[in-house]
Parts: sequence; C-alpha cells; structure tokens
Amino acid sequence: MLAVAVHEARIGLAEGGIPIGAALFDADGRLLGSGHNRRVQHGDPSAHGETDAFRNAGRQRSYRDTIMVTTLAPCWYCSGLVRQFNIGTVIVGETRNFAGGLDWLRSVGVNVVDIDDPECVKLLAEYIRDNPAVWNEDIGEG
Amino acid sequence: MLAVAVHEARIGLAEGGIPIGAALFDADGRLLGSGHNRRVQHGDPSAHGETDAFRNAGRQRSYRDTIMVTTLAPCWYCSGLVRQFNIGTVIVGETRNFAGGLDWLRSVGVNVVDIDDPECVKLLAEYIRDNPAVWNEDIGEG
Repeated sequence: MLAVAVHEARIGLAEGGIPIGAALFDADGRLLGSGHNRRVQHGDPSAHGETDAFRNAGRQRSYRDTIMVTTLAPCWYCSGLVRQFNIGTVIVGETRNFAGGLDWLRSVGVNVVDIDDPECVKLLAEYIRDNPAVWNEDIGEG
Repeated sequence: MLAVAVHEARIGLAEGGIPIGAALFDADGRLLGSGHNRRVQHGDPSAHGETDAFRNAGRQRSYRDTIMVTTLAPCWYCSGLVRQFNIGTVIVGETRNFAGGLDWLRSVGVNVVDIDDPECVKLLAEYIRDNPAVWNEDIGEG
C-alpha cells in the first residue's frame, strides 16, 4: 500500500511539486482513492497528499475501517481530517522530515503505523534541501 | 465579515448543499477568498466551508494576521487547518449546532470570537432537521 503513496509522491515531483503522496484503502485493501500534494501545480494550498486522496475517494458512508497511507506523517490539518472522519488506521512512510500530529492521533485511538521507509525519507529530504521556501509555505512556517 | 460567510452558506443552500460558508480576510479586512461546503454539489467530502475559502484564497506567505470567518464552529479537520497554518483569528457565527475544536484552538493561542448569530443557528438547524443523513456524513458520524 505504501508503494501507491510513493508512486503519487513521485508523480508530484515530476510535475514540479512537493513529493508527498497518499492513498485511502478499505478494510480489504481495495484502493478508494489516491492523491498528492498540488500546492505548486494547482496553486492550491488545501491540496495536501492526504486531503487529495480523501477527495479523490469521493463520498463514503463510514471511514472507520479505512486505512490512510501517506509518505509523510500528517500535519495538523491532515491529522484533523483523520480525527473528524474517524479514519481507523494511518500508515506513514516516515516521521523524520516532519513529525505531524501522530501522538495526538494515537491519544484518540487511531491505529498508527510508522514504516520508517528510507525511500520516503530521502525523497522529501532532497526536496526540502532544494526548495526550503516552498516547504515552509506548505507547513505554514513564516 | 460574517455577512460574507452567510452569503456563501446561502449560495450553498440554493445549490442543494449544506449551508455552511466561510471567508478569509487579511488584517485590513480585505477579502482573500470565500467559499462554502460542496459535499453534495461536487461530491467532494474535502470541501468544507473553511477549506474551500482557504483554497480560493490561493497561496499566501503567512496566515498569522489573517482572519477566518465561518458560519459554524470549525470541525477537527478545519481546526487543524487553522492550527497548521497559524491563522491568528477565527470568528464563528455559532457553536450551537456543532461545537467543533474551538477550545483546542484557544488552548494553542488562536483568538476565537463566537458571535452566536441567530440567523446562522437557524439556517443550519433547519438543514440538519431536514437532512440528517447528509449532515452526519459531513461530520463523520456513522
């Protein structure tokens, strides 16, 4: 499942964007929707990887048994998405470049798995090194 | 400023959608972007009033001095948006139909103002009464 999110991140990078991808799966591992950060490509600050995947999955009756897989720990915005819609499980590629709201999600009962994947770490670390201003804009750092 | 958000909510209602609207202003009261919930209209569960207004405002260098005005207290998803992007002030039309994450935002230093506007309360209460399933879907209640 992480490979789907990484594929999305790589699409984003190829488009000139921030390489963060995500995918939402149902309990049987069926893909509901995937997406990636589109801040640069669409000039859309609301399109983080997780929110883009959530959007592309369309309307769902319940998220309790769904699994959000993302290349990077979700920020407060995306952690809030997970909490509000009661997404049961979050699998993250890494937390080294950004820790996000994972402890908060654990504290409210979300099942969190950190894969600590070297490819995910390297992909984003290189982007941040080369594009610090865009990265800071994406996480609301002035 | 609340009138802009209420106008957006009424557009949403006229489109057959959930009547929640929002608007983002700069420190001088200049409108940066406004929007409304588009779950029903666009089949887009990611488009809450606040996220739609944030999206329509486009990329901004800093949100510290911006003001998010919304007809309803922001849910966890939209509260997370406010926290991540350090939006300094949130003005809400009402908290009676939904309390959202306002206490959490206050605890991290966001300036929160609750207008407790009867028009906002009535507009959403009537929608919830007539469309309980759509409302519950919008706040992730199974």
